[in-house]
Amino acid sequence: MSSTYTLAEIAKWVHGVVRGDASVRISGVAGVEEAEVSHITWLSDEKYAAKLRSSRAGAVLVDARFGETPMAAILCEQPALAIVTILEHFAPPVPRPPIGTHSAAVVAPSARLGRDVRLGPNVVVGENAVIGDRSVLHANVFVGADSSLGADCELWPGVVIRERCELGDRVVVHPNTTIGADGFGYQYAGGRHVKIPQIGRVVIEADVEIGANCCIDRAKFGETRVGRGTKIDNLVQVAHNVQVGPGCILVAQCGIAGSTRLGRGVVLAGKVGVKDHVVLHEGVQVGACSCVSKDIPAGSRVFGIPAVDHEQFVRERAALRRAPEMVEQIKALTQRIEQLEASADDRASG
Amino acid sequence: MSSTYTLAEIAKWVHGVVRGDASVRISGVAGVEEAEVSHITWLSDEKYAAKLRSSRAGAVLVDARFGETPMAAILCEQPALAIVTILEHFAPPVPRPPIGTHSAAVVAPSARLGRDVRLGPNVVVGENAVIGDRSVLHANVFVGADSSLGADCELWPGVVIRERCELGDRVVVHPNTTIGADGFGYQYAGGRHVKIPQIGRVVIEADVEIGANCCIDRAKFGETRVGRGTKIDNLVQVAHNVQVGPGCILVAQCGIAGSTRLGRGVVLAGKVGVKDHVVLHEGVQVGACSCVSKDIPAGSRVFGIPAVDHEQFVRERAALRRAPEMVEQIKALTQRIEQLEASADDRASG
Amino acid sequence: MSSTYTLAEIAKWVHGVVRGDASVRISGVAGVEEAEVSHITWLSDEKYAAKLRSSRAGAVLVDARFGETPMAAILCEQPALAIVTILEHFAPPVPRPPIGTHSAAVVAPSARLGRDVRLGPNVVVGENAVIGDRSVLHANVFVGADSSLGADCELWPGVVIRERCELGDRVVVHPNTTIGADGFGYQYAGGRHVKIPQIGRVVIEADVEIGANCCIDRAKFGETRVGRGTKIDNLVQVAHNVQVGPGCILVAQCGIAGSTRLGRGVVLAGKVGVKDHVVLHEGVQVGACSCVSKDIPAGSRVFGIPAVDHEQFVRERAALRRAPEMVEQIKALTQRIEQLEASADDRASG
Repeated sequence: MSSTYTLAEIAKWVHGVVRGDASVRISGVAGVEEAEVSHITWLSDEKYAAKLRSSRAGAVLVDARFGETPMAAILCEQPALAIVTILEHFAPPVPRPPIGTHSAAVVAPSARLGRDVRLGPNVVVGENAVIGDRSVLHANVFVGADSSLGADCELWPGVVIRERCELGDRVVVHPNTTIGADGFGYQYAGGRHVKIPQIGRVVIEADVEIGANCCIDRAKFGETRVGRGTKIDNLVQVAHNVQVGPGCILVAQCGIAGSTRLGRGVVLAGKVGVKDHVVLHEGVQVGACSCVSKDIPAGSRVFGIPAVDHEQFVRERAALRRAPEMVEQIKALTQRIEQLEASADDRASG
Repeated sequence: MSSTYTLAEIAKWVHGVVRGDASVRISGVAGVEEAEVSHITWLSDEKYAAKLRSSRAGAVLVDARFGETPMAAILCEQPALAIVTILEHFAPPVPRPPIGTHSAAVVAPSARLGRDVRLGPNVVVGENAVIGDRSVLHANVFVGADSSLGADCELWPGVVIRERCELGDRVVVHPNTTIGADGFGYQYAGGRHVKIPQIGRVVIEADVEIGANCCIDRAKFGETRVGRGTKIDNLVQVAHNVQVGPGCILVAQCGIAGSTRLGRGVVLAGKVGVKDHVVLHEGVQVGACSCVSKDIPAGSRVFGIPAVDHEQFVRERAALRRAPEMVEQIKALTQRIEQLEASADDRASG
Repeated sequence: MSSTYTLAEIAKWVHGVVRGDASVRISGVAGVEEAEVSHITWLSDEKYAAKLRSSRAGAVLVDARFGETPMAAILCEQPALAIVTILEHFAPPVPRPPIGTHSAAVVAPSARLGRDVRLGPNVVVGENAVIGDRSVLHANVFVGADSSLGADCELWPGVVIRERCELGDRVVVHPNTTIGADGFGYQYAGGRHVKIPQIGRVVIEADVEIGANCCIDRAKFGETRVGRGTKIDNLVQVAHNVQVGPGCILVAQCGIAGSTRLGRGVVLAGKVGVKDHVVLHEGVQVGACSCVSKDIPAGSRVFGIPAVDHEQFVRERAALRRAPEMVEQIKALTQRIEQLEASADDRASG
C-alpha cells in the first residue's frame, strides 16, 4: 500500500508512452470519480472523456488514439487490459498460510501433498486425496477422500470438496462453497420420495474460478463438469450432471437444473434460471432474471420468463406497455362500430 | 467401483427377469447416451425406445411390458424404482469418520452422544446437545447447546445447527447449510430498525433431506417446522415461523417468507418465491421462477409473477405473444372505421 | 424458559397499564392463534380484534385506545415496540463461548484482542487483525489479516471475513456468510477472461446485521460499503463496489450487481435483482422478485421485470389479464367492420 511509482515506471509495465509529466508519483488506482491526486485512473472509451474534467486523478491511462487529457496520461494499446497489469503491481500481498501443514490441520496418512503446498489451521484432507504443487488450502477447508486438486489451486476458508471430485490446475474456489454434494434426485414410490443414490462426481477443469457460497452437485452417475476457464460468481447453483462448457460466465445467483448443457462461451447474467435437460449452444447470452425453459440456438440473446429471443422480448414489452391503452382503444372502437351499425340499420329500415 | 455382476445377479436384486444373455457382466449404471458396453442403462418409458438403437449399453432395464430391445434386458415392474436399488449396489462406499469422537472435536461435557456416533475433526457440540445413535457429524460441523439430533442423521462438513433446534431421525443436511439463525424481524421505531428477539426454534422432522448452503431460520417464537419426508435442494431460504408440510419438494434457490404454510406434498420448482403469511394448500405445484403472493387452493398448478393458475398463465402468455400484432390490428381497424365513418358522413350530408 | 411474571410486572417493563386481573402469571409470548393460557399475545391493529375471541391467550398487549378484550390486557402506547421489550425479557440466554480464547482457536501473535472478547473453538484470527471489546466469535469463524471488528460484534459459526475488511460496532453476522471475497471482474482478452485483481476492501458500518450464507464482495479498488443500521436477510449477494446506504432493508435472496448505489432507507423485498452501475435513491421500495435495470428516483415504489413504477405495473398487469379477451374482441370487431364494409360496398354499387 505504501509504494509509489513514477508514471515513467508504470508506462513500462504496460508498454505505454507517457504524455505530460513522467515524474508524477502514483500510489494507487481508482475510478475516475473517486480518484485522488496520487491515483491513476483509466477510461475504457473516449465517450466518457467529459468525466476527466472533474476528476482529481493525477494521471489517466487511455487508448493510444485518445485526444487531449486534463492530466498526464499513459497511452497504450489496450487500456482495459493494461489496467489489470497496473492493478497487479499495486495489489497488496494476499495473506496465505505458510508453506507446510499447520499443526491444527488433519491430513489422512494416505493423502498425497505436492511440493510447497500450504495447509492452514483446521484444514481436513481425506484418505487418498491429492493436493497439487503450490496449492493453498486456507483455514477450515475440507477435501474429501479420493478427491484431487491440480497445481496452484486456491481454496478459501470454509470450502467443502466432497469425495472423488477432481479440480484441475489453477482452480480458485471462494469461501463457503460446496462442491460434490449429492444431486437432488428422488423417485416417488409408495407415497414417499425414495432417494436416488448420487454416485457420480464433479470435475472442475483448469483455470476455473468459483465464487463464494456456490453449490456444484455431484452427478447421479458420471460427471458434473465445469469447462476450462469458466468463471462463476457467488451463490450459483449447478445441479447434478450439468455440463458447463469452457469460457462461460455465470453471474451471481444463477441456477442450472439437472443434466442441462451449456456450450462454449455461454453467458448467464445475474439470477438466471435454466431448466433441466436443455441445451444452450455456443455463445448464448441470457439476460438478467430470465428463466430458460428450452434449447437455445448458438449465438442467441434471450430474455424473459420464459426466455424468448431478445428482439421479441423488446417488442412484447413495448406492446405490454401499450396494453392499458389498447383496452381503452378497443372500447372506443366498439362504440364507433355500434354507431355505424345503428345508422346502417336505420338506413336498412328507413 | 471395481466389482462386476452378471445380469442374472442384478435381476435378482430387483425381482426382475432377464431377456437375452444373463451372463453379461455389468460394472456400473449410466444414462442411455453415455453408457458403455459394461454398463446397464434404463428407460422410464417406451416412447424413448428409439434412443436404445444408438446406445452402447450392454444391458437395459425396462418395464415388463416393454417390446424388443437391441441389447439384453432386465424386465421388471417399476424400472424407475429398480434402478435405485441397482445404483445402491454399485454405489462406492461413502467415506465417514470412524465411530467415536475425533481428537480434534470439541464436545461439551454435558452433551449426550448415542451409540456408534461418529464425530469428525473440528466438530463442535454444545452444552446439553443430544446426538442420536449412529448419527454422523462430518468435519467442521457445529451443533449448538440444547439442540438434538435423532438416530441415523448425517450432517456434512460446515453445517451449523444453532441452539435449541430439533432434528428427527434420518435427517440429512448437506454442507454449509445453516439451521436456526435468527429470523429477519425488526420493528421500525425512532428512525431505526429495532431487532425483534427471535426466541423460537427450528424443528426438522424425520426423513427430511436438506441441500447445501440452505438457510432455515428459527421462529420469532414457537417453531419453524419442516415436515416429515420433505426434500429441500440447495440454496433454499425458509424464513422464521414457516411451516412446511410433509412430503414437500423445494427445488434449488426457492425462498419462503415468514409465517407462510405449505400443505402436504407441495412442490416448488426452482427459484420460486413465496410471500409471507400465505397458505399453499395440499398438493399445490408452483412453476419455476414464479412468485406466489396469495393463498393457493389445494391441487392447483400456478405460474408467473405474480403466480396465477397455470392455464391462465398460458392464455395470457399466448396473448402477450400476439400483443405486438394487436397494436397493428387496432391501428388498421381504426383506419377502416374512419373510412366507414367518413363515407357515412358523406351519405348523411349527400 | 421457566420464569413466569405477573401482568403487573410485565406492564412495568413497557410503561403500560393493566386492564383486568393484574395477577395473571405469564410464561411466554405467542401469536394470537398459537397462544396458550399462560401466554401473552399482542395485536398491532384493532382490525384484527375478531381473532382475540378465539384466542386462548391469557393476556393481550394492545394500543391504549383499543376497545374491550376477552382477556386481561396491557394497554400501552406502541404495542409493536413494547412486544420487543417483552420478548427480550422472555428470551432464553444465548449460548456463547466464555470470555477468553478457546484452546482450539488459532490467533496470530500480532492480532489485537479487546477486553472481554470471546473466541470459540477453531476460530482463526489473522495477522494484525483487531477484535473490539466484548465481541464474540463463535466456533469456526475466520477473520483474515488486517481486518478489524468494532466493539460488541457477534460472528456466528462459519463466518468468513477475509483480509483488510472493517466492521463497525455492534455488527452481527449470521452463520456461513462470506465477507470480502474477490469481486467478479474479468477482462476478456486473447480468447480468455483475465482476472482483474480485486484489491479493495469491505466496510460494514455500525449496527448492521447480516443474515446467513450471504456474500459481500470486496471492491475492485476502494470500498464496498454497507451503511449504518442496514439489515440484510439470508442468501443476499452484494457485489464489488456496491454502496448500500444507511437504514436499508435487503430481504432474502436479493442481489445487487457491481458499483450500484442504494440511498438511505431503500427496501428491497425478497429475490430482487438490481443491475450494476445504477442508483436507487433514498426511500425507494422494490417489490418481491423484481429486477431493477435503471436509476430509480427517491421515494418510488417499483415492481416487475424490468421494474417499472408500481401503478404502471398494476395497470399493465390488469391489461395483460384482459389480453386473451382482447384477442377475441379484435377478432369480433374485425368481422363487424367487414360486414359494415360489405354493406357499404353494396350501397355504393347498388
